[in-house]
Amino acid sequence: MFDPTPILSGDRRALARLLTQIENAAPSAVEALAALFPHTGRAHRVGITGPPGTGKSTLVNELAKVWRRNGRPVAIVAVDPSSPFTGGAILGDRIRMRDLAGDPGVFIRSMASRGSLGGLARATGDVVNALDAAGFDVVLIETVGAGQTEVEIARTAHTTVVVEAPGLGDDVQAIKAGLLEVADVFVVNKADQPGAENTVRALRTSLDLANPAARTWRGDAHHHLTLLPGFATPPPEGGAAHELGVGGEAWLPPIVQTVALQGAGAADVVAAIERHRDHLRASGELVRREREILTHELETRLRDALLAGLVARLGDGLVAAAVDKILAREIDPASAARQLVEKATV
Amino acid sequence: MFDPTPILSGDRRALARLLTQIENAAPSAVEALAALFPHTGRAHRVGITGPPGTGKSTLVNELAKVWRRNGRPVAIVAVDPSSPFTGGAILGDRIRMRDLAGDPGVFIRSMASRGSLGGLARATGDVVNALDAAGFDVVLIETVGAGQTEVEIARTAHTTVVVEAPGLGDDVQAIKAGLLEVADVFVVNKADQPGAENTVRALRTSLDLANPAARTWRGDAHHHLTLLPGFATPPPEGGAAHELGVGGEAWLPPIVQTVALQGAGAADVVAAIERHRDHLRASGELVRREREILTHELETRLRDALLAGLVARLGDGLVAAAVDKILAREIDPASAARQLVEKATV
Repeated sequence: MFDPTPILSGDRRALARLLTQIENAAPSAVEALAALFPHTGRAHRVGITGPPGTGKSTLVNELAKVWRRNGRPVAIVAVDPSSPFTGGAILGDRIRMRDLAGDPGVFIRSMASRGSLGGLARATGDVVNALDAAGFDVVLIETVGAGQTEVEIARTAHTTVVVEAPGLGDDVQAIKAGLLEVADVFVVNKADQPGAENTVRALRTSLDLANPAARTWRGDAHHHLTLLPGFATPPPEGGAAHELGVGGEAWLPPIVQTVALQGAGAADVVAAIERHRDHLRASGELVRREREILTHELETRLRDALLAGLVARLGDGLVAAAVDKILAREIDPASAARQLVEKATV
Repeated sequence: MFDPTPILSGDRRALARLLTQIENAAPSAVEALAALFPHTGRAHRVGITGPPGTGKSTLVNELAKVWRRNGRPVAIVAVDPSSPFTGGAILGDRIRMRDLAGDPGVFIRSMASRGSLGGLARATGDVVNALDAAGFDVVLIETVGAGQTEVEIARTAHTTVVVEAPGLGDDVQAIKAGLLEVADVFVVNKADQPGAENTVRALRTSLDLANPAARTWRGDAHHHLTLLPGFATPPPEGGAAHELGVGGEAWLPPIVQTVALQGAGAADVVAAIERHRDHLRASGELVRREREILTHELETRLRDALLAGLVARLGDGLVAAAVDKILAREIDPASAARQLVEKATV
């Protein structure tokens, strides 16, 4: 039996050991996560995403320092879906370490790609749960870029911060990337550089253009996190539930300017994140988001468990034979899947 | 019963109708795809990916023109996972239309995000299958950017072309994004612009650095497309099956320079793609890739069918109750999934 006590009481080495087990998909991690799960749900999960080159890592370090000054334990999960190597992440860690070293109230973990998107998203979720149970008030989930995967991972947070910076080319790109729709807080970093005002203006215009009618899909996009029933709160008329709380109070994503290299503006970002957390609680939106995130997690686990069960029941041979028949064009994949499922359930 | 004859005999309106049904996930599309599947497997599927701003769309148009001059029917599927709106894609289409208009040997289809990554990848696969059955010799699958999703979609092709261009910032970025590992053919577009030689040199250096030992993970990454058994060809010693054919003949991704706006170099890219296709056939690698792609497709269908079956068997109520218990932290998602699967299989 897994004893959760060391992790719950702040043993960092026990925590690090578990995170390694999670990353290696060790069977022991499953039991540990089940034992820790009742102790989750307290951390505020903050996703930080945005295009490469905006200075996200530097900003994340500065945010951590602000929370540390307020006496709050902070964990940072740096996710790099683009790199199958851990080298880059490790290098990044060393730089961070120098900055935040020796503070037991800070915990930093890098997650590199494991060759499969689903695997990374699952492992990240488990790592965040472990950190939540371990008592970190704030868990920052930082992604290297703003690909759809990274946006998806950031979306499993309570508050999603999108970082922009001037001089990264076409401002429309940011909007195209679907970032406008997932952001709860915008940060324009490198605000001392030429063009920062333009970036802020472009963001503001885009936010203004995103009228309720155009925004309804935003709720849709969130709904698409899962195919399962169980979080059936319909979006209020004329807007998405994501933005309009139960009380009808709208959240308009603020645009905060920072110069992270000098630490300037970091406290404002933390204040904006905490205002958003308060808004989520007051509006009832927090429960809706939690429900959606957990439904999505249940769905993923169900898919994995069902597939593993089918392969165990039918054996590799039948599945391999189906692939052969598909290759020979004797049957299409959808029909083959249907037949295998029928065979497994009879 | 669905009659595949019109589509198989080149009726473009019937084809367009089916593609719309696929995009809308209409039940009628399932039957149609099953009927068309025996007629697939003839098209050469070419994925075109790379960072935004490299001129991919212009290049794709020029490639289509080259194949058309050779009398080959070409289909273009433009995938934009970043945009939930179809506006951008439609605009792109109009520009293309002007260029390739009136040629019945060219078919262009845009795919915008449907709010879910899995949904887009599935719909794209179905659209490509329909185009394959409809007799297009070449199906070009073009993505707007080079996010992990886009790379995953491009990887379901036989030949993956990665487009780069000078002046897009850090050359290391391209390598970081994992593009080096998926490319069968590199194109440096805008080769008349300053810095093009540097981009070519950086790519060449990266390719040289990617020695067999460092490259073995590449085969691994491909293996991770699926969790299912059935394509168990182990990579040859010291290198990945992806690169070293059964005969041990290595494929070294060529770097082709183009100025797509002037059509320059497009014929060279087509020649490189066709050389790669010949290499795939001669080395036996084509069958291995086909098997992997189809195994992945079977796996996806299995997951969908199994989940739908479970919900149908247990009813929404039980699943929603499980979500409630997870929300209350009475059970963790993995254990809840296990219990639901047990209930459904008893």
